[in-house]
Amino acid sequence: MKRVFKNIGELKTATGSVAVCGKAQGELLTLHNAWLLEEDGVIAALGTGKPPKADKTVDCRGKLVTAGLVDCHTHLVFGGWREHELAMKLAGKTYLEILAAGGGILSTVRETRRASEDELYEKTRGLFLEMLVYGTTAVEIKSGYGLDLETEKKQLRVVRRMKEEFGDVAATFLGAHAFPEDMTHEAYVNWLCEEAIPQIAEEGLADFCDAFCDDGVFTAEESERILNAGKRFGLIPKLHADEIREIGGTQAAARVGAVSCDHLSETGEEGIRALRDGGVIAVMLPATSFYLKKPYGDFRGMIDAGVPVAVATDMNPGSSPNLCLPFAMTAGCLYGRLTPSEMLTAATLNGAAAIGMADRIGTLEPGKQADLVVWDTENLDRLIYRYGTNRAVAVFKRGVRMTGKENLWNV
Amino acid sequence: MKRVFKNIGELKTATGSVAVCGKAQGELLTLHNAWLLEEDGVIAALGTGKPPKADKTVDCRGKLVTAGLVDCHTHLVFGGWREHELAMKLAGKTYLEILAAGGGILSTVRETRRASEDELYEKTRGLFLEMLVYGTTAVEIKSGYGLDLETEKKQLRVVRRMKEEFGDVAATFLGAHAFPEDMTHEAYVNWLCEEAIPQIAEEGLADFCDAFCDDGVFTAEESERILNAGKRFGLIPKLHADEIREIGGTQAAARVGAVSCDHLSETGEEGIRALRDGGVIAVMLPATSFYLKKPYGDFRGMIDAGVPVAVATDMNPGSSPNLCLPFAMTAGCLYGRLTPSEMLTAATLNGAAAIGMADRIGTLEPGKQADLVVWDTENLDRLIYRYGTNRAVAVFKRGVRMTGKENLWNV
Repeated sequence: MKRVFKNIGELKTATGSVAVCGKAQGELLTLHNAWLLEEDGVIAALGTGKPPKADKTVDCRGKLVTAGLVDCHTHLVFGGWREHELAMKLAGKTYLEILAAGGGILSTVRETRRASEDELYEKTRGLFLEMLVYGTTAVEIKSGYGLDLETEKKQLRVVRRMKEEFGDVAATFLGAHAFPEDMTHEAYVNWLCEEAIPQIAEEGLADFCDAFCDDGVFTAEESERILNAGKRFGLIPKLHADEIREIGGTQAAARVGAVSCDHLSETGEEGIRALRDGGVIAVMLPATSFYLKKPYGDFRGMIDAGVPVAVATDMNPGSSPNLCLPFAMTAGCLYGRLTPSEMLTAATLNGAAAIGMADRIGTLEPGKQADLVVWDTENLDRLIYRYGTNRAVAVFKRGVRMTGKENLWNV
Repeated sequence: MKRVFKNIGELKTATGSVAVCGKAQGELLTLHNAWLLEEDGVIAALGTGKPPKADKTVDCRGKLVTAGLVDCHTHLVFGGWREHELAMKLAGKTYLEILAAGGGILSTVRETRRASEDELYEKTRGLFLEMLVYGTTAVEIKSGYGLDLETEKKQLRVVRRMKEEFGDVAATFLGAHAFPEDMTHEAYVNWLCEEAIPQIAEEGLADFCDAFCDDGVFTAEESERILNAGKRFGLIPKLHADEIREIGGTQAAARVGAVSCDHLSETGEEGIRALRDGGVIAVMLPATSFYLKKPYGDFRGMIDAGVPVAVATDMNPGSSPNLCLPFAMTAGCLYGRLTPSEMLTAATLNGAAAIGMADRIGTLEPGKQADLVVWDTENLDRLIYRYGTNRAVAVFKRGVRMTGKENLWNV
């Protein structure tokens, strides 16, 4: 089946099959009055001028078309919600008081342990469908609300079911998200390296291994040990670092050859050099910074130093209850001073590269999957600028329309 | 025609027919497993337990129902957009360089002068329909992109057409938004007071008169003169103040008896006292602060001092290209430290009071219009917390369903 998207007001895409950095991050392919031909879920060709014949036509007059967005850092499988902590925080309660009242990450651990796999699957699926409406067509999902083998595996089985249903879903084992209440730090790290990782890897439940390397959580040495254990079992390393304070996470990520290092709101020049020298993608999480009222991080310093920058929502029930990657893009442009072009690359190609999918998604190029978004906006600048309400009028995944009506932009 | 909304998970509303302040701003009527009876567009009754019989039923199981949101400060009639200024800003250009490149408010003035009334009407109507989808059922709209009589009147005729179509639309004459390029400040203020205001009022084109009282725009004395001229012709005063710097705007607003004073991101204790003593509603604009990366203002200090606080989007093409009042609510809670309850009052009853409509909208009470929103969330805290994507599943205006499908929450 051939479908042609014609009269595209502005087609805008990064190009390539690996993360791009420096000047290249802002240099996009831009076509005006363009067409794109999809055949059996794959991009067959694109160009300007007279469009080729096809079985179906989608008229994109005056619209922007980009690759589907890639949300490369989320915690989308969890029990419960934590909205009451917001009200407590606004009423002046401290984090310790919230913990004492039964809140914080360990309350999500309790709720996730309690929930059935089917309950978690229905919830995660609902959240991803909401993301799709706003233009996200591929997603990474972490475990890390179990802190025991049974629950971590339950979370990762949910991710596997998501992958079976939606295709481009990356699974990350994040047992090293926090310490459980009933084990010493040393015992938990040993257990992660010697029991959890081997079993998770053997069952093929994860593609990536991650750890939360920060003040009060896992040290750089512990994180490195965990990621190296993951590597031995074929799990590609990623790392949460420098969200609270720099404790050597970027250097550890570089040493283990992590594909990405995430958060980085406190990363300084040395950390940036470590990422660059290690060829690590910086995954920035501006929606988290907005929600926590914390620094956004030095996006510009990273771009200028030659570190490829990606952007993600960090969707989770504690520090980033936001599913909307376009909001993160706007916040990242405003507060990280990326240009809209750099930001589109961050949310598509570089996000895809951060989860090992840049060979098949993240750009609009012949041979890649027809994952694309038709935006009700004339140009990319306006997509970033007109934030707050949804601009995605139709979202296609492997050529299949996931959201939006055929005639939505003709009425 | 009678319609009953039944099984409402949580019905939450302010009460009263005037703006509330202090503790009362956070004290809402809350009903669980509630019903609301609407008859011919008016709220007939509400309660808990067995719902009354009706011609139509809307099942709101597990959902939050609130009064429709009131966006009491917008600039919704304008020509063009200014997304390219964002890219210029992000690339490091100063505001003066942007002005020199033909940007800034005067570029919107040029575009608004150029556009036909019908073009402006279609655009404004489209923007309001987008607001409705996100829960806003009443809106205030300012002129101020003409700075000449012909264009200001054209803008206000667009607002009148909006009022004829949608009912609860307030019209504000904001000739004192900026100075035109071809007149001295003194000549322009004279012209506003002696020619523009009398003619606009005579044609019944405005309900309110407003001025931009700030550093580099209109002085407190000029603003007071303009608002007093408006009063003589029956226009209720409002004032933009303390967005850039305190120059006596709050005191001027209090002296002229303004119904609201808006922006207030730089207002200190003296200004807060002036607002309280003058009985002026503080209209806070957190989305503007987010977009401009400026201070949010002392919301808490105002509540604590007994000033009624309202919240609005400030939608405009320069400093707040955001139509989503729920986003402003979340930003205002996070950065102004209002509780979700205080914020709901700010976005409903106090917003309605700021545009003279609190006798008919802004709360869910028998006798008021059936303007209400069914939110896909279990409680108010979660509405504020789960920002970024739309939680409004159905929006009713005077009992008429404006958005959402009958079965949206049953599928």
